[in-house]
Amino acid sequence: MSHEFLTLIDRVREQSPLVHNMTNVVVTNFVANGLLALGASPVMAYAKEEVAEMVSIANSLVLNIGTLREPEVEAMIIAGQAANEKGVPVVLDPVGAGATPYRTNTVKRLLSEVNISLLRGNAAEVANVIGEEWQTRGVDSGTGEGNITDLARMAAQKLHMTVVVTGKDDVVSNGEESIIISNGHPLLTKVTGTGCLFSSVVGAFASVETNYLLAAAGASAFYGAVAERAILATGDQHVGTFQMEFLNQLMLTSSSDVVDLAKVSIAEVTSI
Amino acid sequence: MSHEFLTLIDRVREQSPLVHNMTNVVVTNFVANGLLALGASPVMAYAKEEVAEMVSIANSLVLNIGTLREPEVEAMIIAGQAANEKGVPVVLDPVGAGATPYRTNTVKRLLSEVNISLLRGNAAEVANVIGEEWQTRGVDSGTGEGNITDLARMAAQKLHMTVVVTGKDDVVSNGEESIIISNGHPLLTKVTGTGCLFSSVVGAFASVETNYLLAAAGASAFYGAVAERAILATGDQHVGTFQMEFLNQLMLTSSSDVVDLAKVSIAEVTSI
Amino acid sequence: MSHEFLTLIDRVREQSPLVHNMTNVVVTNFVANGLLALGASPVMAYAKEEVAEMVSIANSLVLNIGTLREPEVEAMIIAGQAANEKGVPVVLDPVGAGATPYRTNTVKRLLSEVNISLLRGNAAEVANVIGEEWQTRGVDSGTGEGNITDLARMAAQKLHMTVVVTGKDDVVSNGEESIIISNGHPLLTKVTGTGCLFSSVVGAFASVETNYLLAAAGASAFYGAVAERAILATGDQHVGTFQMEFLNQLMLTSSSDVVDLAKVSIAEVTSI
Repeated sequence: MSHEFLTLIDRVREQSPLVHNMTNVVVTNFVANGLLALGASPVMAYAKEEVAEMVSIANSLVLNIGTLREPEVEAMIIAGQAANEKGVPVVLDPVGAGATPYRTNTVKRLLSEVNISLLRGNAAEVANVIGEEWQTRGVDSGTGEGNITDLARMAAQKLHMTVVVTGKDDVVSNGEESIIISNGHPLLTKVTGTGCLFSSVVGAFASVETNYLLAAAGASAFYGAVAERAILATGDQHVGTFQMEFLNQLMLTSSSDVVDLAKVSIAEVTSI
Repeated sequence: MSHEFLTLIDRVREQSPLVHNMTNVVVTNFVANGLLALGASPVMAYAKEEVAEMVSIANSLVLNIGTLREPEVEAMIIAGQAANEKGVPVVLDPVGAGATPYRTNTVKRLLSEVNISLLRGNAAEVANVIGEEWQTRGVDSGTGEGNITDLARMAAQKLHMTVVVTGKDDVVSNGEESIIISNGHPLLTKVTGTGCLFSSVVGAFASVETNYLLAAAGASAFYGAVAERAILATGDQHVGTFQMEFLNQLMLTSSSDVVDLAKVSIAEVTSI
Repeated sequence: MSHEFLTLIDRVREQSPLVHNMTNVVVTNFVANGLLALGASPVMAYAKEEVAEMVSIANSLVLNIGTLREPEVEAMIIAGQAANEKGVPVVLDPVGAGATPYRTNTVKRLLSEVNISLLRGNAAEVANVIGEEWQTRGVDSGTGEGNITDLARMAAQKLHMTVVVTGKDDVVSNGEESIIISNGHPLLTKVTGTGCLFSSVVGAFASVETNYLLAAAGASAFYGAVAERAILATGDQHVGTFQMEFLNQLMLTSSSDVVDLAKVSIAEVTSI
């Protein structure tokens, strides 16, 4: 496997893909600004009356259930099915799956009614989606014991899609091949929406690279490099300033920075 | 025409008008903070049960369809009609008009059921509102070919209201007179909500000046000066830091700064 | 009364309580980031299908009516009643009570159907809740004449709960004892959501201290110290930078900083 995926940000900036986000009310501003900063074009649209048409002009669709309610869920299904018809890749972020039955069931419903291309969650969320035990608490608790490489591969095999499990390390797996990116930093857990924005960044990368394993690995390596550069600039104690520096670095981090900073390892291919 | 409108920010700060915003979920925090920073008083209220009463104590109403849904549209009509009864000026920001039929039709509905005082959009949005051809993509794409001075004047004549077309240059027209403010900067397109906040700033200025041509031109000149000072402080590569500096400068930019920085030209009056 | 409540932030950081927020769309990002920065765990959930289960794993519930609508109000009642059953403390922030009848009536409804532990508002809002005259305008106008210590005590007695009236001074009262914290700063009124975030901080502190008078006084002293340190760093003219520095200081301000900076006075106990 070549590491050309480390330079995918160049393609994102050239093509400036339109990413249709149906995300939660907590992070919508941060997601829009993050996508703008890195060079993509965000659009947010939620009304069932328009999502099918909006997604048909988009290059990817990101569904995030962070503050889901019935009208959003219905619109997500309409948008997801329209995306499927048009061949637009769909990213699902199952925020807080497992925290309440409503979230768990909504994820099941989305997975059964929409053909999802990529699932992006923390370990607890992904484990919940495939019915594995993992400790969860609220919507932010993805820490816990267990081998996340196994988890990512197992989820990818079971769900027949590319899966990204994020945390201290990010693991991307399509069920056959898995890539580990080890650029995580705990300060990211102190800023709301860094996970949600990452899901939308995965959407941007999947807009320009149809091999979703590489798209997601490229997104992860880019995002990790951005975080590292931001922390270098602000230290790890200034969580407010870090937010703004993170946006700065989404614009400033080049593909050669990613190549320099990415800590990539390829997990052995496990025969299925 | 005197250029006294360049100092309207002083009047805004003296009177601290209450601006009732019905805006989209992406930008609501930025709009509220922006209005507070410059010296106005924002209020956000969306429930059909209360918008008529809220707008009756407000000095202007700003309707923004960025993430519209039926409940918001219904509430906007209630609020708009109550504003009309009380003589409260109404600004409409037709975000993404043309991107989907739902947006296009909602704008038509708002224009037919509410007496709008000012329309503020980018060229593609304004063109869509009056049924002219313009290239659009998503909700942020206002670039394209065409003479925006003609567009603004034509829209003002057709719609019988003051129209503000923003972009590299801003053009304000009431159909008879047009003012061009040439303080735009591309970095503004990299921060979500700068257009939406501007519409609300137009609302603040229209609260203190009943000649809406002058109110909007004053708002544009002020906003351009703020952007220019913010970019001077942060450079054009630090999009996160710029956001915060932009809020700083909304507070710090004085009317004499506006007079110094504004690049104003008066378009020739075209006989109708 | 000892002043041990000044060090309650240590307990918050040790226990990292899960604070379930049902807040308004303007401030949700700022509230989540503020709680994360100080060491609590925020969760935002609004769907009537899940709020009862979400609050049952939370350590406190914060209800904020800033941009209320019927679906939110119904969900707040479900969540509040579930919190009551589980013994989870409930904070109510009656944003803009008095600005419209809908807000006034919704507060009445919440107070009658949910057992509220703490009420946090500005003077005008708290006065409205207990039917006292106070001047109001929009949702941010808490200034006005009157003795806020009397107001806080009167409200606490009438409502049978702990009441926090914030402004230049904060007054916390349980109807028998009142504590005054004099660390307010006018710049806080220029950043949207500082009051809403404070209500959620009160929720975090009430999660770790069942004497709500002390919990709220501790939250107020901590919050005042944070503001003071942030203003020291940024000056009082840079409202954008201040926002980010405020988040920084929510993380950096220690209990000994609070002890150093808090301006606490104990109001005399008035026989009832």
